[in-house]
Amino acid sequence: MADLISLPEIERAAERIAGVAVRTPLVPFRHDPAATPAGAPSLLVKAESLQPIGAFKIRGAYSAIASLTAEERARGVVTHSSGNHAQAVAYAARALGGKAVLVMPNTAPRVKVDACVALGAEVVYVEPTLRAREETAAKLAAAHGFAVIPPFDDARIIAGQGTVGLEIVQDRPDVDVVLVPVGGGGLVSGVAAAVKALRPEALVVGVEPELAADARDSMAAGHPVAWESERTGRTIADALRVQRVGELPFAHMRVHVDRVVTVTEDQIRLAMRRLVRETRLVAEPAGAVATAAFLYRRAELPEGRTYVSILSGGNVDPALFRDVLR
Amino acid sequence: MADLISLPEIERAAERIAGVAVRTPLVPFRHDPAATPAGAPSLLVKAESLQPIGAFKIRGAYSAIASLTAEERARGVVTHSSGNHAQAVAYAARALGGKAVLVMPNTAPRVKVDACVALGAEVVYVEPTLRAREETAAKLAAAHGFAVIPPFDDARIIAGQGTVGLEIVQDRPDVDVVLVPVGGGGLVSGVAAAVKALRPEALVVGVEPELAADARDSMAAGHPVAWESERTGRTIADALRVQRVGELPFAHMRVHVDRVVTVTEDQIRLAMRRLVRETRLVAEPAGAVATAAFLYRRAELPEGRTYVSILSGGNVDPALFRDVLR
Repeated sequence: MADLISLPEIERAAERIAGVAVRTPLVPFRHDPAATPAGAPSLLVKAESLQPIGAFKIRGAYSAIASLTAEERARGVVTHSSGNHAQAVAYAARALGGKAVLVMPNTAPRVKVDACVALGAEVVYVEPTLRAREETAAKLAAAHGFAVIPPFDDARIIAGQGTVGLEIVQDRPDVDVVLVPVGGGGLVSGVAAAVKALRPEALVVGVEPELAADARDSMAAGHPVAWESERTGRTIADALRVQRVGELPFAHMRVHVDRVVTVTEDQIRLAMRRLVRETRLVAEPAGAVATAAFLYRRAELPEGRTYVSILSGGNVDPALFRDVLR
Repeated sequence: MADLISLPEIERAAERIAGVAVRTPLVPFRHDPAATPAGAPSLLVKAESLQPIGAFKIRGAYSAIASLTAEERARGVVTHSSGNHAQAVAYAARALGGKAVLVMPNTAPRVKVDACVALGAEVVYVEPTLRAREETAAKLAAAHGFAVIPPFDDARIIAGQGTVGLEIVQDRPDVDVVLVPVGGGGLVSGVAAAVKALRPEALVVGVEPELAADARDSMAAGHPVAWESERTGRTIADALRVQRVGELPFAHMRVHVDRVVTVTEDQIRLAMRRLVRETRLVAEPAGAVATAAFLYRRAELPEGRTYVSILSGGNVDPALFRDVLR
């Protein structure tokens, strides 16, 4: 069985990212302490949308690249994500004075490619299959000595994302339930490792769209189960269209994650709108699933008084955002 | 001359609001550290929109009500604002276990009145003139022994709002220029008092709409100058339609505020849109003026490397917000 991440590894990651990642606040969701009768649960939103590049991904990417030697950084890093992780790697490499090469599907949205290029990264286009992306990244790494910075199936990345959990328990030692979006599983496994180490009685719940419920199926099966990309591609939560959780994240999830619940597309949209009204935070669809679980799937959640939902990112398409606000 | 607020008073206010007000982050505006050439200025946004009730006003109101005796709180508090301050007083009174009476113009938007009632406040309607509001509040205070909690012309309120400045210098001891919206002057005077005490070389700039430039005129005249409500009413920045800065805030501004600049209505709208895109923060129009000054009036600002703009609030009408995002 794979070694799981330990608290000291997450604490070292926290030291690396200090001053680069924003120490994001827990924003109270209900602004009326009185409207909730005494004893009723309260929700706090961990606003990872306020990070540079607009998502928690900066934590893992920066921490991983900062842990390389100066020589390794000078040779360069490579990854094969087209989403927030690619931007995080480009941002972190530039901030640390290294070079980043991003292998992207030739179907990647122009706006995301442009953002990475503006951050000084080189982009290599490949066919839009996972195999083409992985193979090209591996070849580039072998040929040029680049360090590979995977999006989630990596101990350094998991430790970096775990700093979100560390901050939650530091700020609210009384937290009962932590709600975390699940895509590849890097965030939920790091957060769960931190929370369980610091407050074993707290419960950690993974949340994903009903239309991309591979993590729920994986937990039921006892091993990572893949969904076809045609199925996961149906959800508006583009950052959660990952077909299968990673091996190392799954090893953490089996041990540390108490439950996985799903939310509908309508619930995701409603949660995005309510987040603007109640917390003045902009969430992308994936960023709203954990709050949606609190609002609309409460009966399926463990009981508690103090809930925290992780708003993982805020990179929403402007047209979709306006539509959701209507 | 009036006594100005001292740093220890602001520090005491900070102790009172700890755990109630959110310790808001400084959110980097440009997410590319490299796109700004070395030496070019950077902007950090102080996200007061993330407070309960969505604006910095909770700081002054809570701090002022917390400084009352238990007996005074039990008798109740009264104020005569219809905006964010009214909600802040209602929220703080409820949180501290006291009663709040809000004197509001009978033209106040239903949604704001409802929000205050939901927070347990009593609302007393009067004619929409400043005199009617002030007289009614004073009469209620005299008849029932209510403590008056003014929106800005009050030492306790100024000390509470000053905690924003305290946090800015604590988080960024290298800050060069702080940009602050000016309505009644409570925020800018408290912030300036804190910043000048902790970092005398930093400069504090007040920002207001061109269509409500009474603070600029006041600074030029050397005393508070009033604008007609028909004039200040033209700006979309409803929270900055105050006709005149308060006497006590003005005494602080003369000593501590280095400059007042103005922004146009178009610049406010553009800044609201860019705040969503670059920082994923929702700003009401008044909340965007300081960022607008950095983006569009740089030539009129003092030179510096590290600028902070205060995003004072995020309570924007949904229809206006959608329109601005188009």
